[in-house]
Formats: sequence, structure tokens, C-alpha cells
Amino acid sequence: MKKLRRSARLVDMTQHLLARPHKLIPLTFFADQYGAAKSSISEDLSIIKELFELEGVGLLKTVAGAAGGVKYIPMMNATEARTVVEDLCEMLKSPGRLLPGGYLYMADLLGEPEALSKIGKVFASVFAEAEANYVMTVETKGIPLAYATAHYLNIPVVIVRRYSKVTDGSVVSINYVSGSSKRIQTMSLARRGLPEHSKVLIIDDFMKAGGTIRGMMDLLEEFKAEVVGVGIFMETANVKERLVDDYISLLRMTEVDVRDKEIRLELGNYFKKEI
Amino acid sequence: MKKLRRSARLVDMTQHLLARPHKLIPLTFFADQYGAAKSSISEDLSIIKELFELEGVGLLKTVAGAAGGVKYIPMMNATEARTVVEDLCEMLKSPGRLLPGGYLYMADLLGEPEALSKIGKVFASVFAEAEANYVMTVETKGIPLAYATAHYLNIPVVIVRRYSKVTDGSVVSINYVSGSSKRIQTMSLARRGLPEHSKVLIIDDFMKAGGTIRGMMDLLEEFKAEVVGVGIFMETANVKERLVDDYISLLRMTEVDVRDKEIRLELGNYFKKEI
Repeated sequence: MKKLRRSARLVDMTQHLLARPHKLIPLTFFADQYGAAKSSISEDLSIIKELFELEGVGLLKTVAGAAGGVKYIPMMNATEARTVVEDLCEMLKSPGRLLPGGYLYMADLLGEPEALSKIGKVFASVFAEAEANYVMTVETKGIPLAYATAHYLNIPVVIVRRYSKVTDGSVVSINYVSGSSKRIQTMSLARRGLPEHSKVLIIDDFMKAGGTIRGMMDLLEEFKAEVVGVGIFMETANVKERLVDDYISLLRMTEVDVRDKEIRLELGNYFKKEI
Repeated sequence: MKKLRRSARLVDMTQHLLARPHKLIPLTFFADQYGAAKSSISEDLSIIKELFELEGVGLLKTVAGAAGGVKYIPMMNATEARTVVEDLCEMLKSPGRLLPGGYLYMADLLGEPEALSKIGKVFASVFAEAEANYVMTVETKGIPLAYATAHYLNIPVVIVRRYSKVTDGSVVSINYVSGSSKRIQTMSLARRGLPEHSKVLIIDDFMKAGGTIRGMMDLLEEFKAEVVGVGIFMETANVKERLVDDYISLLRMTEVDVRDKEIRLELGNYFKKEI
């Protein structure tokens, strides 16, 4: 037990909560920790709660009862999320980012911890109520986004591999048809990577026809898992036959003129739904 | 400007600092933000500083002068780091983790946000003074560790690919010899992924002879970059000819008996150096 002044206690409770999103912390934990009365702890929490809401850090949810406590839910509202995505959009529009085949170079942006953290928080806010136990993605580009999201949901990540390795142990593999290139590809997941009947949130950086996402969904059936959400950073418009219906996208690429190096981006379906 | 009571101000300053490791924040920023005197801000900061040190959150460094301010440096001392690594060690020793070829299954552990975060903080503490501009790793398993480290250093990650993709644009590729299997392999990095003369911290999950790390170092020469540190989560002992001399490891696998499924782990060279 450490006797702290209220000011120091507030700093400590803030850092403790921020490091443990979505985790229920009993009030008695704090009371014992600081040798303080529960009523003082409640007052402290209401100061933190008010500030977190004011500054858009997130919510503090209080759960009443014997098994109760307080939970920090990272939460960015749709207006803030829109600002974040519009800023990214500006950066992504530069013509030098256009690559052969109509792809967009985004690796630098998805390598930047602050940008990544914001996108992760947007996804974690969108899927805050989905009750996922795992975030799933496929190597390689989606991995940072998946971790950024998982950090704010405080759940583990499982990575589906395109090339399975000896270090995975026994794996479950499926073949799938890439929707845009129509090629048959393989993806696999370590058998021990995911317990059966898990609830899974799929996160990926880019979606054209959705063949890869469809593949992950099929793979999840082998694990008797339930898909509780699909979050895509950027989708492309003008797809003839989309293989996935229910997903949230943050950005949409509507037009790519490879000759004139022109890219047109707009906000994804999340904003159309919410605003 | 928002007028906040001191208690709310402390909560806000704490969350603001935690979200921006290694970034110099001028005292005037906080003063303007809250319409408070610089002297009050200084008092607040000394409360936060004291608590951060007490709780092992990190250091608050004050830089004096006109261009001065305050900087949060995530820092875990060697004793705490040792506890973190010993806990992981216990989990990794289970015989079921042993895979054919003497590999160890670690993907679950490296998928867990809290464990990952701790390991990232250990590496960020070890290399806090290295002044790296980038963290580099090679796909796939090292990626989460690299991001966890980069989060606490607040610098971007660059990912070296084993299979280059059209979405990378023009790439620089090198061939290297895997030290343990003696096979020739290729790795590549997007030309625009890393500016010339960068200072790079290499992070990876596993090292046997060090061929992959050596390959990354050779690749970095093509970018005129300087390697300012190499951090390895787990190395193997009993390597005949190690291709990398200067590195920090957190764990070392000393013995693997594939038939009896026995694994022996010990603390890596970081602890021998420090304690």
C-alpha cells in the first residue's frame, strides 16, 4: 500500500486505466492500493471520467454491484474520427503514391505510430461493443493496423499466413480465389493460434473485391469461430462483384487514373452510416 | 483555452504525455492550453514526474531554455525488466511449445497486447539513448515487437520483406545466406521506405546464427543508414559461428531436446551486462 496525496493518486489512476483498456478494475483495488476510502476513489474517478469525455480520450464505465468496478473504454466519436481520416486522406492523395496496377503506397503512413494509433482507436471505437475475443488479419500490411486496434480493445491478435512456416506447428490451410486477380491462393493459420468458438474481428488495410477477407471468413469456419466485425482501412469503389457484404471502411478509392497519376479518395461507409 | 481545476489538469497532462513518448512539449503549450502560470505547470509536472518514477512508468526530462520543455521517456529499469522476462520465460518453457526443427511456438505470446507492450517497453528502455529514427524488422513474426518498441520510442517502423509486392513500388533487394540452414534467400525494402542516412534500430523475435540480421545490416548499407542497435527477443546458444556481434538479447535458449521435448531457457545478454 502506498499513501499518495490526491494529486499523485489521480496521476497514477490515469496511467493505470490508460494501460488497461476494456478491463474491469474493482474499486477496492484502488482503495486498497492507496489506503483510501471508496468514496474518495469514486470522487477521483468522476474527475477522470469528466476529463476523458471532455478531451475525447474515452469513456469510464462504472459497473455497480459486488463484482463491479470501473472500465476505461477508448472511444473516438464519429466527428473526431472523420477529422483523423480526412487528414490521412490528404496525405494519401499525393500523385507519387500511385503504383503500377492501381495500388496506393501507404506503408510509410501505416508505419507511423501516431497515425496508426489513431486509426486503431477509430476501429476500436467502431467495434467497442462487438465483444470480440481476437483480432485477425493476414500478413503483412494489415498487421500494424490489427495490433493498433487490438491494443485499444486489449485482446490478442492472430495472424493468418500466406506462406506457412515450420514455426507455426500444425496449421489449417484453405485455398481461396483472389477476387480481383482470380488467382488461386493459399492461407493458413496455426491450429493452436485460435481456440474454437472464438469471436473474431477481422481488420485489414485494403480491400478490392474482398477475396482475401472472404478467405479469412472461410478459414474461421474451420475453427468454428464467429465473425463479429470486419474493418477495412481502404476499399476500392467500382467493384463488379463484391465477395463481402457486411464491413466498415474508413476510406474509399473511387478513381485511379494511372496515366495521369490521379487518385480520388472519399470517406468510407462508416461515415455514411454514422453521420 | 480550457480552464480546468488542478486535479483535471493533472489527469489531462498525464494522458497527453503518455500518448507522446520522447516528444519535447514546451511548458508554454500547457500554460496556454490551461491559461495557467508556468510556475503552476512546473508544480504539476513535478507531481507527475515523482509518480512516474515511483511507479516505474518512466522519466520526465526537463529541458531548460527558450527551446525547452518536458519529455516523457518510457523507462523500465533492469530489475523490473528481469521480472517481465522471467514471467515470459515460465510461459515459454512448456514442452508443448517445442516444434520440429528445434523451434519454439511463441506466436500466442507475441500476439498478446499486454505482454507485447511490456517487451516493447524493455527494448525502448534499453535503446532510449540510441537516437534511432526508425525501427526495422523483417516480416512476419518480428513485426508486433517492432511496433511495440516503436510505440514507446515514438518513431516509425520499416518492414523488410521476404517476398516483395507490387504495392511496395521500387525496391532494393539483396541476397543473403541464412546462417543456420545455409540457404540463399532474398530480402527487400521499398526505396521510399527509408530516407538515406537514417539511424536504425533492428528488432527481431528470434536469432540463431544471425544470418537474417546480417542481411538487414547489409541491406541498410544500400540506404547509407547507420545501425544504432540490435534487439533480439530470443537467441539460441551453442551457435558455431555467429554472424552478428553487437546485439542485446532478452532470452536465450540453451538446450532443446526434441525427443524428450525439453527446453532450457535462460536470461539473455542484456541482464548479464546490466545486473
